[in-house]
Amino acid sequence: MRIPLDPGSGVPLYRQLEQWFADAIRSGALPPGSRLPSTRALAADLGVSRVTVGTAFAELHGGGLVVAAVGSGTRVAPVLPTAARRAPTPWDDAWAGRPQEPDVVAFTGVGDPAAYPVAEFGRTVRQVLAREGAAALGYAPDPAGDPSLRRTVTQLLASQGIGVPPESVLITSGSQQALALVCQVLVRPGDTVVVEEPTYDLALRLFRTVGANLVGVPVDDHGLRVDRLAEVLPGSTLLYVTPNFQNPTGATLSGPRRRELLRLARAHGVPVFEDDFAGDLRYSGRAIPAIKSLDEHGHVLYAGTFSKLLMPGLRIGYLVVDGPLRPRLVETKQVTDLGTSLLLQRALDRFVTIGRYQANLRRTTRLYRERRDTLTAALAEHLPGATFTVPAGGLFTWVELPPGRRSDELLVAARDRGVDLASGDRFYLDPADGLRHVRLNFAVSPPARITEGLARLGYSQRK
Amino acid sequence: MRIPLDPGSGVPLYRQLEQWFADAIRSGALPPGSRLPSTRALAADLGVSRVTVGTAFAELHGGGLVVAAVGSGTRVAPVLPTAARRAPTPWDDAWAGRPQEPDVVAFTGVGDPAAYPVAEFGRTVRQVLAREGAAALGYAPDPAGDPSLRRTVTQLLASQGIGVPPESVLITSGSQQALALVCQVLVRPGDTVVVEEPTYDLALRLFRTVGANLVGVPVDDHGLRVDRLAEVLPGSTLLYVTPNFQNPTGATLSGPRRRELLRLARAHGVPVFEDDFAGDLRYSGRAIPAIKSLDEHGHVLYAGTFSKLLMPGLRIGYLVVDGPLRPRLVETKQVTDLGTSLLLQRALDRFVTIGRYQANLRRTTRLYRERRDTLTAALAEHLPGATFTVPAGGLFTWVELPPGRRSDELLVAARDRGVDLASGDRFYLDPADGLRHVRLNFAVSPPARITEGLARLGYSQRK
Repeated sequence: MRIPLDPGSGVPLYRQLEQWFADAIRSGALPPGSRLPSTRALAADLGVSRVTVGTAFAELHGGGLVVAAVGSGTRVAPVLPTAARRAPTPWDDAWAGRPQEPDVVAFTGVGDPAAYPVAEFGRTVRQVLAREGAAALGYAPDPAGDPSLRRTVTQLLASQGIGVPPESVLITSGSQQALALVCQVLVRPGDTVVVEEPTYDLALRLFRTVGANLVGVPVDDHGLRVDRLAEVLPGSTLLYVTPNFQNPTGATLSGPRRRELLRLARAHGVPVFEDDFAGDLRYSGRAIPAIKSLDEHGHVLYAGTFSKLLMPGLRIGYLVVDGPLRPRLVETKQVTDLGTSLLLQRALDRFVTIGRYQANLRRTTRLYRERRDTLTAALAEHLPGATFTVPAGGLFTWVELPPGRRSDELLVAARDRGVDLASGDRFYLDPADGLRHVRLNFAVSPPARITEGLARLGYSQRK
Repeated sequence: MRIPLDPGSGVPLYRQLEQWFADAIRSGALPPGSRLPSTRALAADLGVSRVTVGTAFAELHGGGLVVAAVGSGTRVAPVLPTAARRAPTPWDDAWAGRPQEPDVVAFTGVGDPAAYPVAEFGRTVRQVLAREGAAALGYAPDPAGDPSLRRTVTQLLASQGIGVPPESVLITSGSQQALALVCQVLVRPGDTVVVEEPTYDLALRLFRTVGANLVGVPVDDHGLRVDRLAEVLPGSTLLYVTPNFQNPTGATLSGPRRRELLRLARAHGVPVFEDDFAGDLRYSGRAIPAIKSLDEHGHVLYAGTFSKLLMPGLRIGYLVVDGPLRPRLVETKQVTDLGTSLLLQRALDRFVTIGRYQANLRRTTRLYRERRDTLTAALAEHLPGATFTVPAGGLFTWVELPPGRRSDELLVAARDRGVDLASGDRFYLDPADGLRHVRLNFAVSPPARITEGLARLGYSQRK
């Protein structure tokens, strides 16, 4: 058998071997009942000791993945333990937020599925197919996105003070793909990416897949500590920032800090990726101009999405990009997936232009504002001693636990009590830095459930 | 108004100003009918002379973008000139194959839009939204794809002799994304990728964006010249192959060559990417087992798509992958776009499981077989001296022009006569190698139009 072992990796060889077999069994590559080589043969084959192979097999046996039978050696278990059929992945309930049991109160996920305009969007898809027929089911003629949707996006942007032509808009499969394309074009292994700390966990994971060296700059109540940028920007390749209702802290970057951030980024020649994932979802305070609206020299890559305000399942976002980077990004987008689904682009365009987007945004803003206020009140009542942010918009409240409490322990206790939340560790470069915090998404559950969830979490119950 | 002017740019200020307004008008940031500031006010605001502003406005007026009315100053034209609405881009007609004029005969594109099951698919989307509601509009809980669609894909694969569990299937945004993900995970700049020559042009462009060193192996009537593989495989990172109805030649790799290819790839430790982009679209001859169906050691990455058989606009494909590469590919898929649109996955799953996919495939196969035969007859009649392939399936006929004829010249002449085709140069590492060939897609146009198109191309008319 060809099993890749890396003696220099720091992971013990028996553990590497065990992991390889576990993956092969879970994936079905080694189907239930199939026979494993003998420890003797495998050890000889791989040039490792029989003890190493034996230890790996013992671990697999302990996990219920293999069985040993007299006279027939080691075989893959005929019936795999439920947990082994598919390795649970850390993201299973992170973004999806689907409660495993009906009674779980979810503070994870994106928005409230009950707020998705299902019927209206269904009607829109029908209308697009009726009016445009097969044309809506072909390849998008322009890999940068449907021209009409790009115009519509510029109108939404103009209402936020960002004046750009449709030629600057690149339609992507969610704003996540916008960031992924920029990484592919700009970031080489070993390049430094400067991030807020804490920051959006899937951005951290993306930067890691491209081999970036990550440098964190702390966030306070007014967003990124811009006064700490000058020491880390020199020599960096990209600055990733979520100025509005930051994920996970909910903080909004102040106007003066935005201007100073742009000035520093220009001075050091570092492009800025502005991830405005929920900029339209504002509940209080004044709108602060996007960094992109201050950008006169094409220094800022601005990404937005329809996922948070409408339906995550659409997977449509956009990137505003000009200048020499643009043709490289469009080429990368085209060779990556030939363009985002035209049917969804056409349906979304129609949905926005006939005003349903704005109506849905108004409705959603009212709904989520009430939930933010409900969560704020419930936190004060049920988690005395915890401190928390009151975000001006978006989805997230960031809770600092009282001294002596750990978020990973709270996570386990919460699950026991039917509450799903995000422990702070996943938002930090060093997970240990996040053990004092949890992130609560207040948009997912209706007010009565929010109060119920906080009551379940409340310390009084722990005594 | 905040208008960024750069006195040091070398572009005259009036031109910068004109350009800014033209962009804002084209983008819709300044909607039709809206009022521009007076030249006096704008000049004072920007610190430039009134002559500068007046010249800019005169240019905009000349281009039809603004109108001047006595007593009401300058306004954006209520109806913009067509040319101002959208700048044409070079790829507009590349994949889409949309004729600019109604009379163009298209031998480019994918399939025939008239064969897309528009109404049936619209009904399916409606049913999914009615039955599943908001659940179909959320994030896909599993970034590797909807479990039900993955099961459905394994059933389609089983009918082709590829027996894999749903856990081996990764749903992607078209098979292009499957290849892009493999490139991201496997191919580093400078790594060698072995390709058929000629081969699919967008695969070549993808390999180039990741900095691969490309090595071509010739194709003959039985597909890739496997006897030439041994000299190029050592030290290579990936072998990319399209065994069925190859793009662009239409050739099918013979059974013995498939086995030999797999043997060599294993011997040299080079993973195989098998792109079966149209394997179901067979018109004649026996089905030959996929290389993946011979693969007992997880050496082959197999990609399929629904684009060619159904609707390109769906952008749904899949990759079959096991072993240690799989978790890395799933992670890359997730951080790239958080998973393919769940709504489209659910709709496609339902479309296939209720049998509409098979019905559509039978209908499409009959339709395209007739068109292949029509093209074959028309080639013999109208292009005497040219030699061409008669593919057993797929979309493409590969035509070698008579001595002395060049495909780039034919392309220009063809466009003059209202015929759209693909010149061979784009399918070769060195475009000069492709100047004796053109690729004709016979699936796009109905038989009468195919004959008409070939008559227009015919040499007799050139005299």
